[in-house]
Amino acid sequence: MITERLGALAFGGDYNPEQWDEEVWKEDDALMREAGVNLATVGVFSWALLEPEEGRYDFAWLDAHLDRLHANGVHVDLATPTASPPPWFTLAHPDALPVTPDGTRLVHGSRDTYCLTAPAYRTAARAIASALAERYGHHPAVALWHVHNEYATLCWCEHTAAAFRVWLQARHGSLDALNEAWGTAFWSQRYTAWDQVLPPRATQWHRNPGQGLDFSRFFSDEVIAAYLEQRDAIRAHSDRPVTTNLMMPGYQNVDLWALGREVDVVAIDHYPDAPGLDAAADVAFAADRARSFAAGRPWLLMEQGTSTVYAGDRVLAKEPGEVLRHSLGHIARGSEGALFFQWRQSKAGAEQWHSGMVPHAGPDSRVFREVRETGAAVARLAEVAGSVVPAQVAVLHDSDAWWALNSDGLPSADLGYHSALRAAHRAVWDAGVVADFAHPEADLSHYRVVLAPALHLLTDAGAENLRRYAADGGTLLVQHFSGVADGRLHARLGGYPAAPLREALGIRVEEYRPLRSGERITLSDGSHATAWSESVRTEGAKTVAVYTHGMLAGSPALTRKGTAWYLSTRLDPVDYKALVAELLDVAGAGPVLPGLPSGVEAVTRESEECRWHFVLNHRAEPVPLRGHDLLTGGTVAELPAGGCVVLREER
Amino acid sequence: MITERLGALAFGGDYNPEQWDEEVWKEDDALMREAGVNLATVGVFSWALLEPEEGRYDFAWLDAHLDRLHANGVHVDLATPTASPPPWFTLAHPDALPVTPDGTRLVHGSRDTYCLTAPAYRTAARAIASALAERYGHHPAVALWHVHNEYATLCWCEHTAAAFRVWLQARHGSLDALNEAWGTAFWSQRYTAWDQVLPPRATQWHRNPGQGLDFSRFFSDEVIAAYLEQRDAIRAHSDRPVTTNLMMPGYQNVDLWALGREVDVVAIDHYPDAPGLDAAADVAFAADRARSFAAGRPWLLMEQGTSTVYAGDRVLAKEPGEVLRHSLGHIARGSEGALFFQWRQSKAGAEQWHSGMVPHAGPDSRVFREVRETGAAVARLAEVAGSVVPAQVAVLHDSDAWWALNSDGLPSADLGYHSALRAAHRAVWDAGVVADFAHPEADLSHYRVVLAPALHLLTDAGAENLRRYAADGGTLLVQHFSGVADGRLHARLGGYPAAPLREALGIRVEEYRPLRSGERITLSDGSHATAWSESVRTEGAKTVAVYTHGMLAGSPALTRKGTAWYLSTRLDPVDYKALVAELLDVAGAGPVLPGLPSGVEAVTRESEECRWHFVLNHRAEPVPLRGHDLLTGGTVAELPAGGCVVLREER
Amino acid sequence: MITERLGALAFGGDYNPEQWDEEVWKEDDALMREAGVNLATVGVFSWALLEPEEGRYDFAWLDAHLDRLHANGVHVDLATPTASPPPWFTLAHPDALPVTPDGTRLVHGSRDTYCLTAPAYRTAARAIASALAERYGHHPAVALWHVHNEYATLCWCEHTAAAFRVWLQARHGSLDALNEAWGTAFWSQRYTAWDQVLPPRATQWHRNPGQGLDFSRFFSDEVIAAYLEQRDAIRAHSDRPVTTNLMMPGYQNVDLWALGREVDVVAIDHYPDAPGLDAAADVAFAADRARSFAAGRPWLLMEQGTSTVYAGDRVLAKEPGEVLRHSLGHIARGSEGALFFQWRQSKAGAEQWHSGMVPHAGPDSRVFREVRETGAAVARLAEVAGSVVPAQVAVLHDSDAWWALNSDGLPSADLGYHSALRAAHRAVWDAGVVADFAHPEADLSHYRVVLAPALHLLTDAGAENLRRYAADGGTLLVQHFSGVADGRLHARLGGYPAAPLREALGIRVEEYRPLRSGERITLSDGSHATAWSESVRTEGAKTVAVYTHGMLAGSPALTRKGTAWYLSTRLDPVDYKALVAELLDVAGAGPVLPGLPSGVEAVTRESEECRWHFVLNHRAEPVPLRGHDLLTGGTVAELPAGGCVVLREER
Repeated sequence: MITERLGALAFGGDYNPEQWDEEVWKEDDALMREAGVNLATVGVFSWALLEPEEGRYDFAWLDAHLDRLHANGVHVDLATPTASPPPWFTLAHPDALPVTPDGTRLVHGSRDTYCLTAPAYRTAARAIASALAERYGHHPAVALWHVHNEYATLCWCEHTAAAFRVWLQARHGSLDALNEAWGTAFWSQRYTAWDQVLPPRATQWHRNPGQGLDFSRFFSDEVIAAYLEQRDAIRAHSDRPVTTNLMMPGYQNVDLWALGREVDVVAIDHYPDAPGLDAAADVAFAADRARSFAAGRPWLLMEQGTSTVYAGDRVLAKEPGEVLRHSLGHIARGSEGALFFQWRQSKAGAEQWHSGMVPHAGPDSRVFREVRETGAAVARLAEVAGSVVPAQVAVLHDSDAWWALNSDGLPSADLGYHSALRAAHRAVWDAGVVADFAHPEADLSHYRVVLAPALHLLTDAGAENLRRYAADGGTLLVQHFSGVADGRLHARLGGYPAAPLREALGIRVEEYRPLRSGERITLSDGSHATAWSESVRTEGAKTVAVYTHGMLAGSPALTRKGTAWYLSTRLDPVDYKALVAELLDVAGAGPVLPGLPSGVEAVTRESEECRWHFVLNHRAEPVPLRGHDLLTGGTVAELPAGGCVVLREER
Repeated sequence: MITERLGALAFGGDYNPEQWDEEVWKEDDALMREAGVNLATVGVFSWALLEPEEGRYDFAWLDAHLDRLHANGVHVDLATPTASPPPWFTLAHPDALPVTPDGTRLVHGSRDTYCLTAPAYRTAARAIASALAERYGHHPAVALWHVHNEYATLCWCEHTAAAFRVWLQARHGSLDALNEAWGTAFWSQRYTAWDQVLPPRATQWHRNPGQGLDFSRFFSDEVIAAYLEQRDAIRAHSDRPVTTNLMMPGYQNVDLWALGREVDVVAIDHYPDAPGLDAAADVAFAADRARSFAAGRPWLLMEQGTSTVYAGDRVLAKEPGEVLRHSLGHIARGSEGALFFQWRQSKAGAEQWHSGMVPHAGPDSRVFREVRETGAAVARLAEVAGSVVPAQVAVLHDSDAWWALNSDGLPSADLGYHSALRAAHRAVWDAGVVADFAHPEADLSHYRVVLAPALHLLTDAGAENLRRYAADGGTLLVQHFSGVADGRLHARLGGYPAAPLREALGIRVEEYRPLRSGERITLSDGSHATAWSESVRTEGAKTVAVYTHGMLAGSPALTRKGTAWYLSTRLDPVDYKALVAELLDVAGAGPVLPGLPSGVEAVTRESEECRWHFVLNHRAEPVPLRGHDLLTGGTVAELPAGGCVVLREER
Repeated sequence: MITERLGALAFGGDYNPEQWDEEVWKEDDALMREAGVNLATVGVFSWALLEPEEGRYDFAWLDAHLDRLHANGVHVDLATPTASPPPWFTLAHPDALPVTPDGTRLVHGSRDTYCLTAPAYRTAARAIASALAERYGHHPAVALWHVHNEYATLCWCEHTAAAFRVWLQARHGSLDALNEAWGTAFWSQRYTAWDQVLPPRATQWHRNPGQGLDFSRFFSDEVIAAYLEQRDAIRAHSDRPVTTNLMMPGYQNVDLWALGREVDVVAIDHYPDAPGLDAAADVAFAADRARSFAAGRPWLLMEQGTSTVYAGDRVLAKEPGEVLRHSLGHIARGSEGALFFQWRQSKAGAEQWHSGMVPHAGPDSRVFREVRETGAAVARLAEVAGSVVPAQVAVLHDSDAWWALNSDGLPSADLGYHSALRAAHRAVWDAGVVADFAHPEADLSHYRVVLAPALHLLTDAGAENLRRYAADGGTLLVQHFSGVADGRLHARLGGYPAAPLREALGIRVEEYRPLRSGERITLSDGSHATAWSESVRTEGAKTVAVYTHGMLAGSPALTRKGTAWYLSTRLDPVDYKALVAELLDVAGAGPVLPGLPSGVEAVTRESEECRWHFVLNHRAEPVPLRGHDLLTGGTVAELPAGGCVVLREER
């Protein structure tokens, strides 16, 4: 692991010295020492400097920076610069520019202006990754390789079409199979030659859902293939671990289960999208995802902002203490450090107003003082490196289900995958319990509770897996419109959801009945719900709550067969939280430190010898708490307002 | 008529056996018998199967299905598949793909991905229609030909430009006449050669209104020409009636008066856009339009959903009883049956969540039980075939006026044609009275009341027609901003509306004064209004209500000269309904069954021997009602909540 | 000045006789005399008639109209028709059509369908301007030349790219300098050859802010160059003044300070965007801008509507009296007359519903009566010609700052330049005080108060200018997020704003902290604010009000160092108005006629001999007021509701 090379948890961030001059570099050296920086991500956007013209590399400037950092005790997370080809590249290879669904060819002047499937791009990316690895593969500063940056952009060009066809041939074998999978009998879409098959470009009405789902799958595989090419090029010259930073949770252009298996360490970027307690919950959401994609192994927070909260049409600033609380929030949930984008706030360019560890105001600033404080705290946590985070609960999470809910022609605009996933995680978080995410086909036997929100698409294997989990006594909550389509996105016939799951739940859903926009209904237990309702018949299940409106009055809304629950509507957050809390309670999945008030987050990392209880106080009042605090090295009796402790407990 | 061949009203729907396998076909046969299906629309999306490669036809599979249906007692509405060319077609003829106003060429992968004016498309469409007719023209199962499906999609490509020019030459004769008609003196748009004339593609600011109107007219004519080509190709081989299904009321890409004259039976598709009572009113709106386009002759409901209500960003489900009530609502207003899209809900493809007669849940479902109940009811109504629906009221309806209100540069976004048309029809429906729609130049003498909402464009002939109607004692209500432009969309000068109408109404509109967004004003009679006001001077009319706001305070809002009324603002629905009710009352246009409570709809079909009163209870309470009910075959004393009766009365 | 040739203030409007016939022309002659029209703008959209085919001119029809107007005593503002090339031009030169950022080539069918940088267009424009000037340069009717119309439309085509590169080479000298200015080190955007540099076309994520700013500057220079070409072509043949009409205040595609220096008389178009008192304030805003761009010299209102208020998705009508009040509102603030678009409301074409001096209803109309009344009033004001409008207050206004706030990646969507500018002007207007606009680098020494809203970008020279202004005792109010970027849009380091200004204000802004959407905070003085907050440290300033929320509680919101104030948030209008009123009061900047109630506007024009106090009553009640009224020629004791007087006072 990278922490072994560092001898500590990682602390630092993206470092772009090419934006500054020598005077600033000197100040950087001093300030990095002051802040406790031990890892700098270098070269993310340096293609234009590293390869100023096609095939001619210039490493001299980078040599100097790496040597300087090394001399200063800072390790390097060395990036391949392939997320942003220079202008010369796009002029030389205009066919490698990305094309939108309506045929607009985007130009350079931003970043990510490439088509991932364009041969010229892939060749150039491999070449520069190889050249970098050859030169720096054994450089003493290099602790980690960072391939690309936030693989996220799609393309609908002719190169993409060609690659899509190759992928489809491999997946489906024959056009007959593809026609069957996509249901091309509808709307006369039957393909009779491979070159008729296109990416889902702009068309007249609804697009074919199977085509859309396969395009998402194809692109995910393409991203992973592109990553692997660079990874292998690096491995040929270097023994240091290789990774790439996974995009923020709201994006889903890659199957992160699959990509997680290919990186040496899972790394994520994270920027909350709401302030205050919501941001803290979002940290937990992102971190639990990262740990899950890492199969429970430690992972790395590669990017966060010192003062960046993306709130719709504005970027809010962080509150005092959040730099530390968010950093520890990630570490508590398995991160082996806390890195930021970026060391210095840029003075020019597209992200000049994006926060940095050293803001425009300079080191004499609240932000830098908090960075320094956080660096000191992280430095004290070296011993947690390699420890793990136990979880008793799993939220099911599947790229296919997400992509499926992006299809045209769904019965309601309220069927958001990401929002359902977050709501489920938030309900567990609010109960003070740590959740993993798990793939529907994964082994779930070690979880006490499994939540299945928005599993629109569910394979036969997944349905059988859930049946078995419940049959073995696991507490399962399946939510509305889940399991209604199979792995090819074909609707389940004879009543939803998929048969084994229907059996486990003891119900049969006969009709989906979307609620009107803004409509809010009341269930028999007094809880409220919006967005969705279903006509459910129990077949072995017990009805826990019934609808009270319209034709569904008296009909089951929430059912239970043994430990298998089915919720056929979208409960209001407060009622949903109460339901989840009840399930957790009954299943014996409780908080690690019981008795803490709401807004005080406690998470435990553990090794064979030790337990570390990270306690983060998101409240404005102090909380009594006793124990040995690793951050201060002493015994504490109180957790101050907004403060953090890491209580160390030998096993 | 098709009912003669069927010996009954039609019941059934779109049938796409190519999406299923033999086992399902067998179940289909049984369930169709069970449901009373006697007409299946086949082949709508079968081009890819019927012509798997250019010029090679494969009819064997269709032979089998037609024979099977025939053996099962089900007649066939045989469709030409031209609404959805197969992928091979668009690859062979990329110039036949549709192009948007900004030049994006759409691709296949949905449906309707063709340019209607492309010669290759038209040739291929004629050819396959001809081949189908040649093979099945005398097949005993075939009761009706269904050309294309929902002619609705426009194009702005070079083929379209060329065809548009030919049309313009025929219409205007010379470029001078075109320049005069379009007012090209403004903004220096004078055309000096025909090849300068383009469809209204993406441009810098407002488009020329005359160009836009003529493009709408041209496209409508092009649709009709395309229809006629297929119709004639079929007629060369078959003696069965030919039709096409008219798009839902909110679309207006074709002049349905003109298309109605060319089909052997008017057929429509209908999906409500709001639930509950609004859906019932929308059924009436669609049905009354269909009957009107059929010039009062019986027509056919070709598509409805068993559980499909398009409500903005979601598709709501229908309430229990609505399948029957909506079906009878259409039949009451002249439909010769009730068909659905589609027989079986698709398991895959773009409309997999669109409802079917046999839903995903299968025959053991509320939906299928209601389908069966509806089939039984329709079967009992055979004797109404051929009867007509008398109406005492007409709402004026003109494609040109609609298209004119799509122009750029209008004074307010609140000048919606469709919403004004619906509001007028709804006010009559709420009064329990049946309305026809009528063209402004049609003979109106047999109507007691004529409503003219949103007749922005009104020809000289139309204005004179309305003047004469009022002069002959007809009750006429003309609404704001009507008659302000002539047939070339030139503004009427000297005061609005057009002179003969101004004379009939006894007023002169000097200024239009749009109200602010959200502004609501009060008239002197206590009624409220929004969206619009006008500065009106009476010239012979009596002022019924005056404005009370701003510069218009004391100035006429509602006037009356004899039986000719002018309403210069948009009344709130409740006040508008009261005004229309008053006019109906004064003119003696009352409900067919007086005394029914609100929410109980009564419509009469009549033949020379008989009257059938269709009474539909949209309320949740029963209603006392006495008579011989054709549905039960017995005497009823009460109409149950949500129920229907068809009271038979000999003349 | 044009008024010398006219012997009066100008009154009239755009005149497009080519839309009408001879009978109408005769009526035009009579009605123009009746209305007191002495200036008609002719030929704005006449390219298609003047040059019916490339290179062949037809002036005969224009000769006749000019002679007719001249004979009728109407002078002509003769336009070059280059804002709307005819269809033949765009077919002959398709490369001269404009292209959008996503590559869509717009077509003719509207107006302004040209690319300003296309050589073919520029050549054609120069040629027709030259031909017109050669023919009419000394025509006795011609009093003014009107080049083009509302230069406003951008383009992103290849011609534009080429011209942009030439401009960049001239501005930056080298690619190194360009790379440094744009901060291309970020996101690997370094340019290594000029042909890599593009206009800011559609790209993947945020665009480069420096590229965007330079593109705005380039296009502004290009507009001015295009104007100068036509101006010089005209000057070669004519001694009459030349101008072009500046677009409405909400558009900012040209640096109007620069363009103002090149026109012989500043001319503007103005249409309010809200009714009532807001419209009156908008008149003042537009007029004060025009006078400022004219460097205090008289200017000309070239276009207004008799009844046109652009209110979002609708065009509202004007209230009675507004034609006069708005016209005098402009003249009071320096306009040498009042012109309208257009004389006759068009009967066809894209603006057929845009108001005219003679509306569709004809001369027997409220609108024409008010036009006549206004013409009579303007005729009585001849003696004010050449007089000036003194102002004690300046609002700083800079195109670069505006363009800079159009960048991608700003911290909040609430940073609107135009709205901030209007709010500042409105606060002064509400206080009854006349404001100039001034460039941040202009001599400000003669102003008592200077407001600096939204000066996001501020050059070193501008910052020093403001420092000196405050140091010399001027009252300065700088508002949030001003001075945070330099002339290259590089962020100011070490604390905002720019150092000299920071010194003058005695503060250091450490952090910007955007407020949440809809969030409203309270300051310690009870005022309220939205959108924005900042972490401010005083360094010599006195804190006037502090924040009371979150981490900023107790931290300075409003500060003052001597006469230099800093406001770090966006106050609610009522509180902002109170603050500005206080500053004006303290600085001794009071209304010209003290004691008038709110809603009564008073503005003074003055010459060496005389003062004219224009008093406009926007209220519905009369106001006591005594003096000699130039409009009536007598003494008045009262200003009626909605009325106007011009009180004459000898010095």
